[in-house]
Amino acid sequence: MTPFGRYEDVSLKELSARAIRSAFDDAGVGFDDVQAVFFGNVAAGVMYGQHSIRGETVTHAMGAGALPVTNVENACASGANAFHLGWSAVAGGQYDTVLVVGAEKLYSQDKQKSFSAFLGGMDVDYLDLGDGAGVTRSPFIDRYAKVADLLLNERGLTREAFAQVASKAHSNGALNPYAQRRKALTPEEILASRHVLGPLTVLMCSPVGDGAAAAVITSRRPSESPVRILASQMRSLSADSTGPSDSHEYSAAAAWEQAGLGPEDMDLAEVHDATTPGEIVSWVESGLCRPGDEMKWIETGHTTLSGPLPVNPSGGLIARGHPIGATGVAQVFEGVQQLRGTAGDRQVANARRAFLQCGGGLIKGTTAVSAAHVLTTE
Amino acid sequence: MTPFGRYEDVSLKELSARAIRSAFDDAGVGFDDVQAVFFGNVAAGVMYGQHSIRGETVTHAMGAGALPVTNVENACASGANAFHLGWSAVAGGQYDTVLVVGAEKLYSQDKQKSFSAFLGGMDVDYLDLGDGAGVTRSPFIDRYAKVADLLLNERGLTREAFAQVASKAHSNGALNPYAQRRKALTPEEILASRHVLGPLTVLMCSPVGDGAAAAVITSRRPSESPVRILASQMRSLSADSTGPSDSHEYSAAAAWEQAGLGPEDMDLAEVHDATTPGEIVSWVESGLCRPGDEMKWIETGHTTLSGPLPVNPSGGLIARGHPIGATGVAQVFEGVQQLRGTAGDRQVANARRAFLQCGGGLIKGTTAVSAAHVLTTE
Repeated sequence: MTPFGRYEDVSLKELSARAIRSAFDDAGVGFDDVQAVFFGNVAAGVMYGQHSIRGETVTHAMGAGALPVTNVENACASGANAFHLGWSAVAGGQYDTVLVVGAEKLYSQDKQKSFSAFLGGMDVDYLDLGDGAGVTRSPFIDRYAKVADLLLNERGLTREAFAQVASKAHSNGALNPYAQRRKALTPEEILASRHVLGPLTVLMCSPVGDGAAAAVITSRRPSESPVRILASQMRSLSADSTGPSDSHEYSAAAAWEQAGLGPEDMDLAEVHDATTPGEIVSWVESGLCRPGDEMKWIETGHTTLSGPLPVNPSGGLIARGHPIGATGVAQVFEGVQQLRGTAGDRQVANARRAFLQCGGGLIKGTTAVSAAHVLTTE
Repeated sequence: MTPFGRYEDVSLKELSARAIRSAFDDAGVGFDDVQAVFFGNVAAGVMYGQHSIRGETVTHAMGAGALPVTNVENACASGANAFHLGWSAVAGGQYDTVLVVGAEKLYSQDKQKSFSAFLGGMDVDYLDLGDGAGVTRSPFIDRYAKVADLLLNERGLTREAFAQVASKAHSNGALNPYAQRRKALTPEEILASRHVLGPLTVLMCSPVGDGAAAAVITSRRPSESPVRILASQMRSLSADSTGPSDSHEYSAAAAWEQAGLGPEDMDLAEVHDATTPGEIVSWVESGLCRPGDEMKWIETGHTTLSGPLPVNPSGGLIARGHPIGATGVAQVFEGVQQLRGTAGDRQVANARRAFLQCGGGLIKGTTAVSAAHVLTTE
């Protein structure tokens, strides 16, 4: 993957190419070995008018042959959706080697342009946004402020607890050369940062940024450091969804069943912390944390790098960054680094199994889509 | 599927729902039987701001459960791409029953809005368009005018021949209750219609319109009139592509190999006639017609309903219409009707095998993506 950040002078084609070349180098393959491409992106249409054939514009520019290229859009889970399709095609024997790409150029000096890309990730028949949503802030923040209020009012969380979890994200990000935000911050600094909405400050929210990540999935002879996909599942919200993101519950439950493993078997997790409250609810929705244990987890440092279950060792969306279509594949990248033991200063000790979960979109207040993966070295 | 046409007062959700309900009724299944959804659409983002989660907005509004929903975009081949993914998932054993949807609302009183949706289907780094492209006409017309010139100048075709092939499309469409244009027209009427660009008149070009089509793909006990998918392949252009659409050559060659059949085994074909020259070149690119035989095919009525190989019995994109994301699935619908013998007045006699091919997008003058399918009753 590329480091996430601002790439004002680098095109989406070039960003994607950097991530692809890096994945090819790592896997020891090239376009001649790849039989299909799954390309996840959200905003190229809104940002510079490129709809429809985003993946082909990248592979063609890189000199690839006449591969089947599928362009996937599923809000912040677009990269995870692409990965799921790639896994499905290889697991089903359709192909033996595929390339998965998540790429996004989201930063613009015109903030409203970036924010309007987010708006398209909501059911446009149910936009219910406060003043300033989509103008001075991402429209998704309004929803996360409600999630934050739910945690504060009904589940006994505190703003200080939010700041502590956000501080963990920034501390981890400081150890990650791929992270957009690389400065360790105290909870006090996070609470003192610019107020965004409700209980949220800017350092509890993922930044706008650019980046690309790529993965090669193969059923051929594995590399020297093979990582296997034990489960890959995706679910949407159901028509009778009521929770903030029960699509996370559905995708996690399906992944646990497919993997034949449970949350207790995981050595680390990467979850969708578009904001800090998002990370906290996802602990519970994915089955990692028992409802009611959230404060205990925070107080005991359960999810820190040295805790019993490190969550978001990469820094997560808040510190590693969140170029939306790239995020799902970046989670895979982090999982692979951790399971290979090559994560450097942010390495989780004895990491053999990782849970990854990525959400996206919003329909009537509920996360529209969630993808969950379980990786293992076994 | 829904009849194609103008649906100014019907939402994309409702259009999609109509097609889905119709496919469910036909297959005798409902959302409880379906394990995944593949949703093809191009223009909802440009037309009314709905990006990212188009399929979920439809399934949620219809009361579906927490299904995995993949949103696919691949220009005019979006529906065909969705069908290919659905086939792949069932053929690979990932699911036993999936729903494939292609849906598009493209008509707007503001023509430039519709045309700008097309522009996003070209590599935006290589837009090379004449005056008026994307303003008074679809920007794809400029490319098809060049294809027409190629046929006229290098392959011995004539404008009268174009008109004859277009007349066939309109005659077939007149027999199809799902067609947007349902009036039989003579070659003379077609030549006399409004001039668009180069050798093209408006009745040689597919109209802008709306519509949806859906298909259920299952490995369970087949219906009373089963139609099997013998081949499903997709290819992009290669980096050294030079022909107008050699992605068609790649996808057709792959489909013939997978099916273990050749063009000579087909009883009918549905091909991508966004314009009449597009149909003619596709005969050759797909291997159906030997290079140089095009004029003979036209003079002898080779591709008419009663000819040796009826092509586009539905009326094709020119008469059935071309709501871009829906077209690939509409081709499947026509193939199934024909192979079941339920195509009414447009029925091809003794139809047992059908070839379907759908293209999309444009990079440096070449079709970016092509999907090819072979269906059979055997």
